[in-house]
Amino acid sequence: MRVLKIGGNVVNSPKNLAFVLDECVIGPQPFVLVHGGGRTATELAQKLGVEQTVVDGRRITSEETLNIVTMVYGGLINKTIVAGLQARGMNAVGLTGADGNLIRAHRRVIAGIDYGFVGDVDSVDSAFLMLLLNAGHSVVCAPLSHDGKGSMLNTNADTIAAEIAIALAATQDVELVYAFEHKGVLREVHDESSCIPSINRVEYAALQNEGVIVKGMLPKLENAFQARERGVQRVRITRYDALESGTEIL
Amino acid sequence: MRVLKIGGNVVNSPKNLAFVLDECVIGPQPFVLVHGGGRTATELAQKLGVEQTVVDGRRITSEETLNIVTMVYGGLINKTIVAGLQARGMNAVGLTGADGNLIRAHRRVIAGIDYGFVGDVDSVDSAFLMLLLNAGHSVVCAPLSHDGKGSMLNTNADTIAAEIAIALAATQDVELVYAFEHKGVLREVHDESSCIPSINRVEYAALQNEGVIVKGMLPKLENAFQARERGVQRVRITRYDALESGTEIL
Repeated sequence: MRVLKIGGNVVNSPKNLAFVLDECVIGPQPFVLVHGGGRTATELAQKLGVEQTVVDGRRITSEETLNIVTMVYGGLINKTIVAGLQARGMNAVGLTGADGNLIRAHRRVIAGIDYGFVGDVDSVDSAFLMLLLNAGHSVVCAPLSHDGKGSMLNTNADTIAAEIAIALAATQDVELVYAFEHKGVLREVHDESSCIPSINRVEYAALQNEGVIVKGMLPKLENAFQARERGVQRVRITRYDALESGTEIL
Repeated sequence: MRVLKIGGNVVNSPKNLAFVLDECVIGPQPFVLVHGGGRTATELAQKLGVEQTVVDGRRITSEETLNIVTMVYGGLINKTIVAGLQARGMNAVGLTGADGNLIRAHRRVIAGIDYGFVGDVDSVDSAFLMLLLNAGHSVVCAPLSHDGKGSMLNTNADTIAAEIAIALAATQDVELVYAFEHKGVLREVHDESSCIPSINRVEYAALQNEGVIVKGMLPKLENAFQARERGVQRVRITRYDALESGTEIL
């Protein structure tokens, strides 16, 4: 069972998205596809004059911003992908974490900073996922969870993909693939040929100390290692147009 | 099995919506809830400067408008309802017609008028619905279908509710309830006490000729009679806060 996460650079380009969806329907089936979509949400927020606040690289989610991400992630992007898969003969179902109580979370408050409607995951209902997957449906998951008290929560798509992979790995052989715009984990940030074929925790710590791995790659790799350490059989970070290669997480 | 359709006047009022969701979780379960939400879509279109064209009471759906209704119906309203049901302990799943290939449609072109991305329903996949309902999940359905070629389509919520009820009625005992802001079909448009307890096709035609039933009630009643004639065991039009009364369609 493959859990594939595609980032904003794939989702925001119709050409790149079409490429990935074509690949999905010839790859292992059924699958779970988790999508981001931050740039589209940012654009809509700008058009609506809703100011975006970012603290330590994380978006503070006001009620207005929550409505925007619920519309963009749960509506526009999720249904564009589902309709695109249906057109390719793949009977997909689009979900947020509220649907079927798939992903329960609580609001994040760290060190006195209230991130607003941002959710840290508490649980994934893999039985609901398996109901759909066993019936042959692939699942398209938006980066949204819910708090069980009536509110949706904005949740990082890399984390959602890891948590779903971990939940499925308890009963399935699972491969988690993070697909983005680079060939994998790069030794030189501007040199795609410097892709590292595999990496373990010790090597990761060393590369982090050397300043080779920085910024957005840190939480992505943290999610990837967490997934491996919590039972996911294979985890890879790769380019969206080369799903079978990239950097293997050991 | 109850299929309940709630209109814009319920969806757009948090208080009215909360009332209906409270009623849903003490009524027959699992259920199918179909929602509208036109006013919220119109408001977002205004904020974004996307002009809305209406021909013969029907919204022409441009690509920009399709994106708006996909965001508002499939994202914001659908997930607000699902999260609200989850908070009440009802394990609901929110869907559009693309999810699980639930509602397939084709673009409407009538008498030379191209309505844009407006869908007329071709088929409902009741097997997918039954998979969810048999597992105890209630289903929340947005008024969106898909064309099987990668595009979502904007589809009237009353029609979606009727088509779902008809599809389920082939194997289930189904009650279709249209809930809106009036007590039912009124003999005097401003007098709620003039609610007609029941109505058949002949009486409907007479009231239509007398000019008693006009405007938005005509397509609603047409959907209601279609549902009865195509196998739905019970059909009612009633006020959102009195789901067990209203006008019975004979």
